[in-house]
Amino acid sequence: MINVAVFGYGTVGSGTVEVLMNNGDVIEGFVHDRINVKSILDLRDFPGDKYESRIVHDVDEIVNDPEISIICETMGGTGAAYKFTKMALEAGKSVCTSNKEMVAAHGAEMIALAKAHNCSYKFEASVGGGIPIIRPLETSLTADVILSVCGIVNGTTNYMLTKMDKEGADFDAVLKEAQANGYAEADPTADIEGFDACRKIAILASLVYKKTVKYEDIHTEGIKNISARDMKYASQLGRKIKLLARYESNNNIRYAIVAPFLLTPDNPLYHVDDVFNAIKVTGNMLGEAMFYGKGAGKLATASAVASDVVECAKNIGKHIECELSEEVVSFTDLDVSKKRFFVRVGAEVTAEAKAALPVEEEVKVGFYDEFAFVTKKISEAEFEKAKNELGTGVLNYIRMEDRE
Amino acid sequence: MINVAVFGYGTVGSGTVEVLMNNGDVIEGFVHDRINVKSILDLRDFPGDKYESRIVHDVDEIVNDPEISIICETMGGTGAAYKFTKMALEAGKSVCTSNKEMVAAHGAEMIALAKAHNCSYKFEASVGGGIPIIRPLETSLTADVILSVCGIVNGTTNYMLTKMDKEGADFDAVLKEAQANGYAEADPTADIEGFDACRKIAILASLVYKKTVKYEDIHTEGIKNISARDMKYASQLGRKIKLLARYESNNNIRYAIVAPFLLTPDNPLYHVDDVFNAIKVTGNMLGEAMFYGKGAGKLATASAVASDVVECAKNIGKHIECELSEEVVSFTDLDVSKKRFFVRVGAEVTAEAKAALPVEEEVKVGFYDEFAFVTKKISEAEFEKAKNELGTGVLNYIRMEDRE
Repeated sequence: MINVAVFGYGTVGSGTVEVLMNNGDVIEGFVHDRINVKSILDLRDFPGDKYESRIVHDVDEIVNDPEISIICETMGGTGAAYKFTKMALEAGKSVCTSNKEMVAAHGAEMIALAKAHNCSYKFEASVGGGIPIIRPLETSLTADVILSVCGIVNGTTNYMLTKMDKEGADFDAVLKEAQANGYAEADPTADIEGFDACRKIAILASLVYKKTVKYEDIHTEGIKNISARDMKYASQLGRKIKLLARYESNNNIRYAIVAPFLLTPDNPLYHVDDVFNAIKVTGNMLGEAMFYGKGAGKLATASAVASDVVECAKNIGKHIECELSEEVVSFTDLDVSKKRFFVRVGAEVTAEAKAALPVEEEVKVGFYDEFAFVTKKISEAEFEKAKNELGTGVLNYIRMEDRE
Repeated sequence: MINVAVFGYGTVGSGTVEVLMNNGDVIEGFVHDRINVKSILDLRDFPGDKYESRIVHDVDEIVNDPEISIICETMGGTGAAYKFTKMALEAGKSVCTSNKEMVAAHGAEMIALAKAHNCSYKFEASVGGGIPIIRPLETSLTADVILSVCGIVNGTTNYMLTKMDKEGADFDAVLKEAQANGYAEADPTADIEGFDACRKIAILASLVYKKTVKYEDIHTEGIKNISARDMKYASQLGRKIKLLARYESNNNIRYAIVAPFLLTPDNPLYHVDDVFNAIKVTGNMLGEAMFYGKGAGKLATASAVASDVVECAKNIGKHIECELSEEVVSFTDLDVSKKRFFVRVGAEVTAEAKAALPVEEEVKVGFYDEFAFVTKKISEAEFEKAKNELGTGVLNYIRMEDRE
């Protein structure tokens, strides 16, 4: 029997207990031993809960328990989670986490700590919920130069954009509805501002680059400015608006960005709607591969945590390699990267916009108080300069995702 | 330095050499050692080829070479490939293969042989070309009861069905065009009859079930009967026709099948067009995950072979576990599984068809010489019986893929 403890009995934590206990037979088929959830760390009591008797309030009780060899950290945040993860790894217990803040902020440090103590730090659930993406990047896409990682990695914003697209509703109305039915949190900032997606692409870019990409360095725009009007223009262009988290490394230009993009139907990400997530990886030999599934949700995310538990259980006393060093790298080439931009300006600044930006195509959907157009391919720096010149005349802009 | 040999210098074999030699730096980042293609086994000479000097005609020269520790078997078939794979494994050399016929027919035997000789038998490239699917099934989807594996795993037929759908062309015309531009072979039997897809789903079902599923036992229908008329009906139903390879295990009913199905747009496989492949896996906790990419092609497939080489190179002298026993299992529940069927009969047997099958919905696209309809949900056995009664009156039928 292999004993496991869960830190944090919230949504993902309780899901993890459920997966480990209910799918015991399947798991035993891979581990050739039984997994048992011995202790659950939480400040709260859970009177009447099926696993009430396993609730523990003191982390020391778990960290000092020689019978426990694997920890599932599903607490979230970088406060207590950071302290407790370090304690667990220093005690030689492997840690499997769904905590993207922790991985984005301290992943490499935890991997090094795990290595020093002959245990492992695993984080499949930190990106894409139940979608296998971390392990494929580490173990399957190992013979390719990775040119791009581009994903829809936030379910809340994808749900909202899908609703806006299908129903013509405006941002505020859709946000309220998403909050009402549990698809958006009371404080939706992390999702709608792109911060959540930013941490996830930082994790993926770090894995690809094998060095730490700091999420603070990634240019991040959310979806707050997307309106029903933008959806009309997108439709006119035969495109959909998606919040993409991208890492690009091509022709010696390397950058990461989180921002809304206009996608064409021949892009497999175009078809990823509602709360679903997908991550498209492009390799120099492989071409495009895409990983699709439930990017959030209790059991899907817990399934990913549990798959990490299975791998750790097969490797008790050993460190599972993860090539990710603490050395920090920053990608500085966003400014010189070139794209086309869809731009809307007030009708009164039409002449100034035409002077500031090279118009490739005008886009008309019947709003006479504004002028909308797609630029020719220009650099981010050129666009930024023109945008600043036009000031409040710019109503909104969205990058075009063009397939080469 | 880790020395590798390639068996068979055809399309995938030469692609594998290219990936291993050209992406050496990336690969070294994972292996922490250099991979070198020392020998290439082929009956032919390749005068002028970059690697001409490494061509070897005698398998013994490679099998007896103590410097070579990994073999890439890209010969195809189960003749010489079977013999040479055994020789290699018995000599303690790991074998990485793209050969689906070998894996479907002798996979479990080769895994056992590898285990006995402290080496490995890896076959990521045998299903889905460059798409990581074998390794995710073995290492990521390990905490879920797998309820279904459903894929578009043959690029030739998907290309043809996409062409027929978009251009309204008939089967024979599209096949000729596909042959002319290299998307279909001179003898297209294995693809259009579903035999290729059958071997692939046998491999995936075996991995899920951890016992050998014999491909001969899988009910297999190809796309030869699909006509331009069927495409018109599909369009009328708001669906697309896709050749699916499926393994289903739900409510104590377990079966595998290869056949054309009518898919709705909310199925992620609906959007997989042209030569692309995708495999959707449904777990009891995970829900649906889908793996998408290039299912064939020289470099994509070679990328998968090379990723297996990387894993073997990290595990020299060790057996990489693969839970797949030689015990044969057959799935006998297809007959009792229930679906709706789209059926076209000659107008003259309309009354007989209505008597033999429960009509849920008539489908009309303007052909007055036939009667087309969708049945209610009935068992395969019930449908088979009615089909036999109606005899040549049945012009064609396609199963409906209904999302629960």
